[in-house]
Amino acid sequence: MKLASLKGGRDGRLVLVSRDLTRATDAGHIAPTMQRALDNWPLYQAALEDLAECLEHGSVPTFRFHEHDCAAPLPRAYQWVDGSAYVNHVELVRKARGAELPASFWTDPLMYQGTSDSNLGARDSVPVGSEDYGIDCEAEIAVITGPIAMGATPEECRAAIQLILLVNDVSLRNLIPAELAKGFGFLQSKPPSAFSPVAVTPDELGAAWKEGKLSLPLLTAINDKPLGCPEAGEEMTFDFGTLLAHAAKTRPLSAGTILGSGTVSNRDPDGSPGRPVSEGGRGYSCIAEQRMVETIRAGAPKTAFLKFGDTVRIEMKDRKGHSIFGAIENRIEPVGIKAGA
Amino acid sequence: MKLASLKGGRDGRLVLVSRDLTRATDAGHIAPTMQRALDNWPLYQAALEDLAECLEHGSVPTFRFHEHDCAAPLPRAYQWVDGSAYVNHVELVRKARGAELPASFWTDPLMYQGTSDSNLGARDSVPVGSEDYGIDCEAEIAVITGPIAMGATPEECRAAIQLILLVNDVSLRNLIPAELAKGFGFLQSKPPSAFSPVAVTPDELGAAWKEGKLSLPLLTAINDKPLGCPEAGEEMTFDFGTLLAHAAKTRPLSAGTILGSGTVSNRDPDGSPGRPVSEGGRGYSCIAEQRMVETIRAGAPKTAFLKFGDTVRIEMKDRKGHSIFGAIENRIEPVGIKAGA
Repeated sequence: MKLASLKGGRDGRLVLVSRDLTRATDAGHIAPTMQRALDNWPLYQAALEDLAECLEHGSVPTFRFHEHDCAAPLPRAYQWVDGSAYVNHVELVRKARGAELPASFWTDPLMYQGTSDSNLGARDSVPVGSEDYGIDCEAEIAVITGPIAMGATPEECRAAIQLILLVNDVSLRNLIPAELAKGFGFLQSKPPSAFSPVAVTPDELGAAWKEGKLSLPLLTAINDKPLGCPEAGEEMTFDFGTLLAHAAKTRPLSAGTILGSGTVSNRDPDGSPGRPVSEGGRGYSCIAEQRMVETIRAGAPKTAFLKFGDTVRIEMKDRKGHSIFGAIENRIEPVGIKAGA
Repeated sequence: MKLASLKGGRDGRLVLVSRDLTRATDAGHIAPTMQRALDNWPLYQAALEDLAECLEHGSVPTFRFHEHDCAAPLPRAYQWVDGSAYVNHVELVRKARGAELPASFWTDPLMYQGTSDSNLGARDSVPVGSEDYGIDCEAEIAVITGPIAMGATPEECRAAIQLILLVNDVSLRNLIPAELAKGFGFLQSKPPSAFSPVAVTPDELGAAWKEGKLSLPLLTAINDKPLGCPEAGEEMTFDFGTLLAHAAKTRPLSAGTILGSGTVSNRDPDGSPGRPVSEGGRGYSCIAEQRMVETIRAGAPKTAFLKFGDTVRIEMKDRKGHSIFGAIENRIEPVGIKAGA
């Protein structure tokens, strides 16, 4: 099944979307919102599956589906935790500033609690106060879960994954060093994230979804110029079950928890930091990583962070070239900040 | 007005509670849940105020109010950010480990994004996997807001405060050092928090609520033995408006955002770290602070963290000795953790 929340009301309006993303049908008679569906998934699942089948057959009323009509699948979510499952990315961050990667980072996931009360829709603009903040994207895979008990095992967590989607984890790079130096993690440096138009059930992904990893290239472009196409499954150090179990070690996770993979990142086949797309490499899922590779190679970054008016596009296609989740396409826009704020 | 969410359903059932906390009346015909009331506060405020007046006059049907029937006012909230507004507390943390406090900590609030998808009710037990985690309470004041725009000023933020309540910010002290060393802030070391039975509108606090600070003693006891009674207004370095503006610098805050003050903490009148209650001092709002003072005085802590079966009680009384928010009273209980989790 492919599910979306059309804009309207604080929590959107639940619809089912056809596999080819061209048609949709209202699912409000089953559950009015995505959150409500997740709260009672076992109760609604069969009815939603029946409706999805009718949608494919054209045996229910449908309407044209437009990705730009979508709110985030969960316009506001009770929990968003973001892992850093591609340790290659973390190692590059350290390398660029001359620091060693602690060995524990290969066994103990890095993860932070993020904000999710104002999730952005796939085509929403990203409002930012200043270009000086060092505006960057981070293309990631995420999962949405049913309820998970405190202390659940990775296997139990994996079984609780109901939906998979894409994220643009907007990051304000120049605010990060001072904020992390204070010791309490990200706050101002991680504003609301944007999510793909649709979220899909694991069975929609076929063989590409295996053991809690999604093995397909994640495509990121800035102003229509490819930034990266790393393969999301190969170098994922921690699968989604392991990441969820890390989050659930001391707390339950409620239905509708969103957990992100962290920036998808690949090394070059010879083990060196990945080359840019322009040199035939798989490129990057964020500008910061490109800048780190530039720093490691030439001593300084040359690619600039995002400017107002720039657009970030994130998409994933199946092996036949069809878009799975629809495309995230966020334009960076200035927001008026009052003096003294 | 005093509002509470009685247990029942995922989001509780909204009731109004009498000023003396003895009677309640259903508010479900106005708004079924606290979140719904906050989503549309300007629309419902007058009706809620009318009902609160009828409740005081006994002109509507009421029932006996029991604090133990309460869920958290927001059983699941879209955002929980916790400041550290009592810089004295932060300075003691540093002093106990021989570190200096950066001067910026007096002007730039420390704040972290916390988990709020499974908030605990006032009398719920706190499930913890192991006593080895170093279980501690943190008694705090918190506010619940209406919507706040990105970049709002401290004055605008202060005007958006709809409700005030108490929090027990459960902390797993022995998990904190390793987690903060990873650089991404608290995750496993800050499990769900517990909230007071009722949340009150600012006008209920009279002169004790002034310029975004609440000036009354915050009472904490462990197993009925007083731990602390620090005055919450005097040494609050950042008022709630300033804390909210810090959180809103790069993002909007949605209706129902909960922001905490951090552990309430006082120095002794002579400026030295506060003395324990047993020595006539105002004591502490968490065990860690007592241990820090012990370390500074005698080279090592002597008070143990919480054990299974211990109970934390947090309450605030008005100048006449009446409980304002009802009491938080959480018993620490073991939760079975599966092998391999």
